[in-house]
Amino acid sequence: MKVAVDAMGGDHAPGEIIQGAVEAARDFGIEVILVGAEPAVQAELKRLGKIPPGVHVQPASEVISTHEEPAMAFRRKKDSSIAVAYRLVRDGQADAVLSAGSTGALLVAGKVLLRAIPGVQRPALVAPLPTRAGKPVLLLDVGANVDSRPEHLVQWAVMASVYAETVWRRNRPSVGLVNIGTEDEKGNALTRATLPLLRQVPGLNFTGYVEPRDVPLGAVDVAVADGFVGNVMLKTFEGVASALFGMVREALKSGPVASLGGLLAKGALRQMAQRVDYAEVGAAPLLGLRHPAFKSHGSSKARAIYSGLRVVREFVGNQTMSQLHTQIARLGPAAGYGEDIVNNE
Amino acid sequence: MKVAVDAMGGDHAPGEIIQGAVEAARDFGIEVILVGAEPAVQAELKRLGKIPPGVHVQPASEVISTHEEPAMAFRRKKDSSIAVAYRLVRDGQADAVLSAGSTGALLVAGKVLLRAIPGVQRPALVAPLPTRAGKPVLLLDVGANVDSRPEHLVQWAVMASVYAETVWRRNRPSVGLVNIGTEDEKGNALTRATLPLLRQVPGLNFTGYVEPRDVPLGAVDVAVADGFVGNVMLKTFEGVASALFGMVREALKSGPVASLGGLLAKGALRQMAQRVDYAEVGAAPLLGLRHPAFKSHGSSKARAIYSGLRVVREFVGNQTMSQLHTQIARLGPAAGYGEDIVNNE
Repeated sequence: MKVAVDAMGGDHAPGEIIQGAVEAARDFGIEVILVGAEPAVQAELKRLGKIPPGVHVQPASEVISTHEEPAMAFRRKKDSSIAVAYRLVRDGQADAVLSAGSTGALLVAGKVLLRAIPGVQRPALVAPLPTRAGKPVLLLDVGANVDSRPEHLVQWAVMASVYAETVWRRNRPSVGLVNIGTEDEKGNALTRATLPLLRQVPGLNFTGYVEPRDVPLGAVDVAVADGFVGNVMLKTFEGVASALFGMVREALKSGPVASLGGLLAKGALRQMAQRVDYAEVGAAPLLGLRHPAFKSHGSSKARAIYSGLRVVREFVGNQTMSQLHTQIARLGPAAGYGEDIVNNE
Repeated sequence: MKVAVDAMGGDHAPGEIIQGAVEAARDFGIEVILVGAEPAVQAELKRLGKIPPGVHVQPASEVISTHEEPAMAFRRKKDSSIAVAYRLVRDGQADAVLSAGSTGALLVAGKVLLRAIPGVQRPALVAPLPTRAGKPVLLLDVGANVDSRPEHLVQWAVMASVYAETVWRRNRPSVGLVNIGTEDEKGNALTRATLPLLRQVPGLNFTGYVEPRDVPLGAVDVAVADGFVGNVMLKTFEGVASALFGMVREALKSGPVASLGGLLAKGALRQMAQRVDYAEVGAAPLLGLRHPAFKSHGSSKARAIYSGLRVVREFVGNQTMSQLHTQIARLGPAAGYGEDIVNNE
């Protein structure tokens, strides 16, 4: 199994990205192709010392930054690390691609170079969120698509269910539709139109509406929402967590007694914080593309890339992609899911 | 100043509600009219002992529970505590109304009995959220309206700005439009259509898009969103806070050393938790009605009702209502804000 890794994407590229990829190649029995500016990549590899076999380098002379308009940057920079890495996958020279770079550029690259699974109208961006219950929840779409239609949400629900089953080994993963109430008549036009469609999908363990309050508590395995709403949830999640952790830290420095308490509780609190850390999750798929493409958090360090490549290995090794094709085909054009917007864009 | 208090609304009614109202009447120089089942109310008053002057009782024989369909319950139960309390305000026998009861029923009562300020198309539900910065942010709409139109958001922004200025005494309160990015072209159809309208409102300190991540950090005084999105933010906020507090509590019991640390840090952590507590905020207005109407959290105890009545006093005492009328009139029918949907429903 070969994974193309964008060595230039993310706040800590290329050093931390390369370190995580090299460690993953050593531990997971996979090959990695580091895509990026060759001198920089070689310098990092030299710094790391002993490089395991199965670590390759593919030169790419340009980098797309997160500050650039994604579509324009992608079109202009033909030799960007993202474009080169995605082409390796498209051309069969790699089985999957991982990047911590510009989300917008990854989506464009995915749609243009990898294209959507036949029948999939809109690929979605997924975020695995930590929960109180311990096991993460798969939230989607978290920003790839706004003003979505009911059929989009149905396809995302089906694909995320396949992902939770094959990659996370969840048994009959439960799927909830994010809504501001649990009664049928609650919600907006989109949720009310999507509810009956999701109920009709054979084999899907759809459990109805789920309130945003219950998602961080672990009420469902998969939470489906329009990309605007999913992104708002994800960012509210991040904002509240950051504000609260900051306040706890402050409280534990607010006086000599509290400080001593904080010192004693430090280990336990750090362990707790780790449970809700991005680095543990590692990477999230761009669901709906014809080839496995993964996104790591922009602030990923070596540990996150390492964890991310373990997720990629699970995805590629467990036939997730063929299951996605099968289940999307099963939804069928009869139900009106055949139109292929993305590939005609 | 007289405030009608729904003695029967909320999880801890009537005991805690009445206690909070009686304490407020004693401390804030206001009169309260306790609306509810007379025997129950009188029994609670007797239990409390010495009752200050200015505490009145208005009988209401029925109660609307949160499990009932709001519109139907409101229509069927003509003598519900909510309906009786709202009628007192409509008929000029009270200056404001406060309830911790069914949000849906309060919205129906507000629209039917109090009606909207001339020009206001959709009254909105507000939630004051605690922030890292210490001072709360006003988030609206948090669920009264879904599938909103740009004009609705503009009216909410203007009204919330008046509220933050007159009730919270913020100087030129900053107003942000909740969005999943800060560049003009980011967002969905609604945010992109609302952005230029908000920029044109004279006198409004509109600071552009605000990301949900920055709201709990205190980036703006007012955050405006469609009611579906606002409710998702509010409930994600609650869910994440509850999950994290639970995890911190667990971590501080996870072993003898951590437990000792937790014991020492207890006071500081409790003080911190208080800063993000509903009871401190007390009550939120239903913005856009012709009379002051407030909602307290369903789980309110005496302290929350007490704090809530202090907010009501600020609202009534600072001419907030006349400012709302003035600013909405200033937006003007020329801008297309004249249509009065609610009052024609």
